[in-house]
Order: sequence, then C-alpha cells, then structure tokens
Amino acid sequence: MAIDTAELPDPDDMPPDPEDMPPAGTSTAGPNPGWLSDDELAYVRGRLPVVYVEAVPVRVDGQGLVTEVGLLLRSTPDGVMTRALVAGRVRYGETLRDALFRHLENDLGPMAFPLIPASPVPAQIAEFFPLPGISPYVDERQHAVSLVYVVPVTGSCSPRQDALEVTWMTPDQALAAGTLAELVGGRGRLLRQALASVGC
Amino acid sequence: MAIDTAELPDPDDMPPDPEDMPPAGTSTAGPNPGWLSDDELAYVRGRLPVVYVEAVPVRVDGQGLVTEVGLLLRSTPDGVMTRALVAGRVRYGETLRDALFRHLENDLGPMAFPLIPASPVPAQIAEFFPLPGISPYVDERQHAVSLVYVVPVTGSCSPRQDALEVTWMTPDQALAAGTLAELVGGRGRLLRQALASVGC
Amino acid sequence: MAIDTAELPDPDDMPPDPEDMPPAGTSTAGPNPGWLSDDELAYVRGRLPVVYVEAVPVRVDGQGLVTEVGLLLRSTPDGVMTRALVAGRVRYGETLRDALFRHLENDLGPMAFPLIPASPVPAQIAEFFPLPGISPYVDERQHAVSLVYVVPVTGSCSPRQDALEVTWMTPDQALAAGTLAELVGGRGRLLRQALASVGC
Amino acid sequence: MAIDTAELPDPDDMPPDPEDMPPAGTSTAGPNPGWLSDDELAYVRGRLPVVYVEAVPVRVDGQGLVTEVGLLLRSTPDGVMTRALVAGRVRYGETLRDALFRHLENDLGPMAFPLIPASPVPAQIAEFFPLPGISPYVDERQHAVSLVYVVPVTGSCSPRQDALEVTWMTPDQALAAGTLAELVGGRGRLLRQALASVGC
Repeated sequence: MAIDTAELPDPDDMPPDPEDMPPAGTSTAGPNPGWLSDDELAYVRGRLPVVYVEAVPVRVDGQGLVTEVGLLLRSTPDGVMTRALVAGRVRYGETLRDALFRHLENDLGPMAFPLIPASPVPAQIAEFFPLPGISPYVDERQHAVSLVYVVPVTGSCSPRQDALEVTWMTPDQALAAGTLAELVGGRGRLLRQALASVGC
Repeated sequence: MAIDTAELPDPDDMPPDPEDMPPAGTSTAGPNPGWLSDDELAYVRGRLPVVYVEAVPVRVDGQGLVTEVGLLLRSTPDGVMTRALVAGRVRYGETLRDALFRHLENDLGPMAFPLIPASPVPAQIAEFFPLPGISPYVDERQHAVSLVYVVPVTGSCSPRQDALEVTWMTPDQALAAGTLAELVGGRGRLLRQALASVGC
Repeated sequence: MAIDTAELPDPDDMPPDPEDMPPAGTSTAGPNPGWLSDDELAYVRGRLPVVYVEAVPVRVDGQGLVTEVGLLLRSTPDGVMTRALVAGRVRYGETLRDALFRHLENDLGPMAFPLIPASPVPAQIAEFFPLPGISPYVDERQHAVSLVYVVPVTGSCSPRQDALEVTWMTPDQALAAGTLAELVGGRGRLLRQALASVGC
Repeated sequence: MAIDTAELPDPDDMPPDPEDMPPAGTSTAGPNPGWLSDDELAYVRGRLPVVYVEAVPVRVDGQGLVTEVGLLLRSTPDGVMTRALVAGRVRYGETLRDALFRHLENDLGPMAFPLIPASPVPAQIAEFFPLPGISPYVDERQHAVSLVYVVPVTGSCSPRQDALEVTWMTPDQALAAGTLAELVGGRGRLLRQALASVGC
C-alpha cells in the first residue's frame, strides 16, 4: 500500500502506526467503513470537502490559564523542518471527539492525557482550498473544513509518527511572528486565532 | 436523472431550481466540480462525513435582540408535514459563507436579505449518523457534520423549493415542546441549542 | 456583623466560612479592598451593576462529553428547598478565575478539583435586575451581570455553607421542565442555555 | 462639576454631550439611578469591579465577511494621539444592549446604524486592573470587567465627543504591530483577539 506522506508537510490523515492500520487484505467494504484505500481517498477528495479536526495542545495552571503551547516539529519529505498543529481527518462513522482523541494520541502519544473540551463548538473554523485566494488557508491535496480546538494536556507527550518533537513554549513565544511563519498553509494565522480564543 | 427527494423529509442538498442545476449533459468533470451525479453522491456519502450548514432564521429588534424565529414547513413525500431549518450540503470548492447564502436564498427566496454572522464559528455543531445511538442526531442518508448558525433576516421571505411556508413565531413558541417535536432527526434539540446561543 | 443571608435563596456573595472572613475589626480600607461591610455593599449595589460568576458543575467522560450535571440543593430562610448553581460576586481586585475558583471551592468543597475552562469567554451572559420585565432574570438585591461557565469537576464534592447537597443527574434530567422550575430568578433558563453550549 | 476627563486617554464613561447629561441639580436619587456624581463614581470604583462594554466597529460584505475595521483616533489631554475602541461603562439599571448602543451612538454618531450581534456572549472578556501584572490589561482608574463585541456598522460614522476621527482600515492593517501598539492599556491585544473571533 502506497503511503500518501508524499503529500506532506501538511498534517495528515495517514495511518499513524500499525495497530491503527487495517489488517492486510481488509477492504473498506469490511467492518470499518472509515478506511479508504488511496484510490478511494483521492476520488472522494476531489468531490467533497473533507472534515478535519485540529488541536492546539496547551498546558494550563490550576485555574485554567494557558501557560504553555505545544507545537509539533515535523520533517517534510524534502527534509524541511516545519511546525504543525495536531490534525487529521474525521473518518466516516467517527465522532468528532473520537477523531480528536485519536489524532491527539497519534501525535502526542498515549500518555498525554488530553482534556477534550466539553463544548463541541470549536475555537475556530478554517476552510482549506487547493488553490490560494479563496480563503487564507491552502491545502494542495483537498478542500477541507477544519474544526480547531484548544486542548489542555495533563500528561507527558512522546511524539509518534512523523513528528520529531513537541516543543513547549510560552503563549508569547508561540505568537511571535517568527514562530507563526513556521506553520504552513496559513496555520500560523489559525494558531493565532485559536490562542486568542483562550485570551492569549 | 433520478431525484433523491425520496430521501426527504430531511433538509436536503438537492438542486433547488432549474437555474441552479447543471446544464444537461454536464459531467462533474466539467467546470463546476461541486456538482455530483446521484451515483457519485451515493458513493461519497458512504465514505466520508458530508459537511452541512444549517441556519435558524430570526428577526431581531434595533438592538439585536431576537424577537421572532422562522421555521420552514415542509411536506414529506408521504404527505406528512414537518418543521425544518434551512439546511444543505457544502459543495466541493464552495466556502461556508457561499453555501449558507445559497441555501438561505433557496429556502427563503431572494428578498430575505440575510445578515450572515461575521464570525465563522457556528452557534452549534451537530453530528448526524445513519444509525441512532451514536449521537442525538440521525440522518438515514449519511454521516453529516453540520455547522449551525443563527441568521437574522431583514427582508421578506417567500419559500421556494419544497418548503410550503416560513412560519414566524416568538422564541418561546419555537421552544415549546410541541414545536421542537415537529423537527425530525434530532433537530428540535438543535433548534433549542441554537436559540440558547442567542439568549433565548 | 449582620449576615445578609436574609437575602437568600439566591446564590450569594456572603462570607462562606470563618477562614474566608476578615479578622474582627478589619475595615475594608485594610489589606483586602474586596471586602465590603454590609453598609458599603448595600450602597454600591444601588449604584453599579455587580459582576457575578456562576458555574454549572459537570462530570465528563474521557472524551469531554458531559455525562452528569451537579445542582446545589439549598434551603431558604423560610425553609423552602431550591436548586441553585454555584454563584457569587467578583470582588474588587479579584480575577474572574480567582472568583470562579473561590466560589466553586466554597460550594463544592476543597476536593472537587474543578477544571476551569481555558477560555475566559463564558458559555452565557445573564443580566439580573431587581424588577422583572427588563430581562428574563431577576435578583431582588441588585443589578448583576453574571458570567456563566460550565466547569467539569473531577474530585469529590462536599457542599459547604448553606448548600445541603450536590445532586448529580443526567443532562436530560437536569433539562426536565420540573428540574428547571426549581431554580429561582430565571436560572432554570440559564441552566438550559449553559447546557446547550456543551451540546446537551 | 469637575469632569474626570483628566483620567483619559482611556475610553471613558464620562457624559458624552449635553443631551446625555443629567439636568442641573439632578441627584442620583432621582429618576435615573445610573447617574453618579464624581464623588460617588470615585467611591464605588474603589469598591467594585465596574462593568464595561467595548465594541470593534467593522464593515462586512454581503456574506458577513469583515472587510474593514474602524478605530477611533483620540487626543489625550496631553495632546498625544491614540487609537481606541468604542467603550464605556454600563450604568445601573441599563441592559448590555442599551449600553452598547449608547456608546456606539456616542462615538460613531446617530447615523452609524450598528448591527448589534444577536448573541449576548461577547467575542472576548478583558479584565482591567489599576496595577499592571495581574492581567494584560491596565486601567489606572479602576478594576473593570469589559465585554468586547465585534459590531458591523452599515451607515456613516461621524465621531462625536473627544474622538477626532474614525479610521477605516483593512483587517491586516488593523492587525499590524504598529497599529496594535497605538492602543493603550493592552487594548491592542484585545483588538487582535476580537478580530480573531471573526476569522481575521
């Protein structure tokens, strides 16, 4: 099975690790209809906006105030380092909370203990289009509608997949122009908006 | 071309009127990639969550306070009358604002003059699944992620398509148990939540 | 010092217990300017809207979904039992987070371990006026602007002060007309709105 | 009557013009209890947080997208020019909508035709303290809890009071570091947060 990581550096919906992958020979007609082969994914991506969830991991103090912001450090196939948010596709049949939890676990490891907000209303909505100019957000692969949440994490983070590292920084550091510029596809703007929603 | 209105009474993404339909013989490979044939729509609906926008039309006074709520009255193919919100699918390549405006115009007519909120963050998010029990919202046709907005309208409404009427009522009337029960698929709950966001 | 509990059954800003009270002989000109004598409080209450925070305590599952709602059971000076939210005044010089934490601890005990939301934007705003008809919310004592939050609690609750009990119920039970009617001053409506913000 | 404009350049709750002022000899015990003499205001300001409303005036296109942001240009008593948001105190007995409308009219003139949002929940909450370090917002005069709204205006603006001008600029211009730095007391941060809530 060809892996579509060639599409990176954007945060991706690729299978994160073996246990999350369908057993060999499993077709999408099987028990988990959320799984799509590469061909299927390419087909539907050209016909419907794809639902994404994104998360800005934060540390909070005892009164909920954000003290640190976590950004993923990823390496693109070309070897370029970029910052990224936790992000990924919502599968067919999957709830937003399940998708958010799955991608947080994939990107931050099983000991991150995220506190997913009680409200399903996201901090911000971002619309990604394959061509620039329609919105501030660009994703060459697809038209995606992304629901962005700020998620406190209480445990320890050990990045998996293609994320090399989770960098924790103060909100002011995360909002510095230099940091925001390291996020691709307009996600620096999105990070700024998400942090604004929590008073940063 | 078979019309999928048989799937009603849910608010639908069907072509609302001739001018909004693709010219005869147009394929989705053509200039408007948002158009899907029935077969294509059926195919993708079984593989991805579909993005919807829904709107609760309201009248407001000079200070923004909601004074009236508009509910659509529809007739199902079986002749059953149901209440509905303005709702419809977001097409590939279409912005949320375009989709919201298009469906408001389709359902309320061209003279409704809706004031789409400045914030893209919806009042509420609803997740519809084909089978009950996964969330409070059910849509037999598909897994849909619906962004729900409260939209003041300032003009006159003349329902088109299959909506027989727009009924204006006070917020208290809209929130009465009897009214909420007339909305199908859990949308009574959604109406209650949307009105809560504007203090009703 | 006369205690203004005679003003109950509304949730109140009275000193909750000895350790939270000013030492005998302390004037408000002293180190804690947030303290007001009864006369001062009565004076300012007739001249400015008073800032309140209110909290709906909830239990959430591992993905943030609200599973239970906590309501305080109080006895009025007349012996009438009423339901109440956690609520209280924001003192001069006190942050909203400090006030929220203080009132949660006063009403739920020191082991409740509340998770105050990262966002300072409340789930709902309620305006209480001494006379009915100006808004849906009435507080005979004052004009209050109340910021209402939904706050997950993770520990065990042992009500203090005048709250006899914290009753945990399902969201549907909390939203039942009979329950909402047990909250005074329009707070049933407020509870409904706050729960709507978390998808209930 | 001494005027407390010496406390400027912060947006202020001072009487904006003669018609809005109490008749000579009127005491606050009179028909409008929201009026406070300078002595009274000074007294209560030292004892309670004061409720403020602030507004970011914007122009939107036909689909609600923010195209321009309006900033007030004020002159301080020292002759320094500063940028400001529409802002002012909520009086005793006054609703938030009334206060918002009153201050918009005072600062933008009677032909601005603001569209006050249907939702009473503000885009952001800011806590101002007399001393720096408690929050990012400072107001030497008082402890204020400010509810910040983004308000589309549809008419023409003719500043009154001490505002010399309303400057309209693009969202990107408003968010430029140079512009944000022209707002005092931390309000540059607040403007950034408010604009983030509408996707800017």
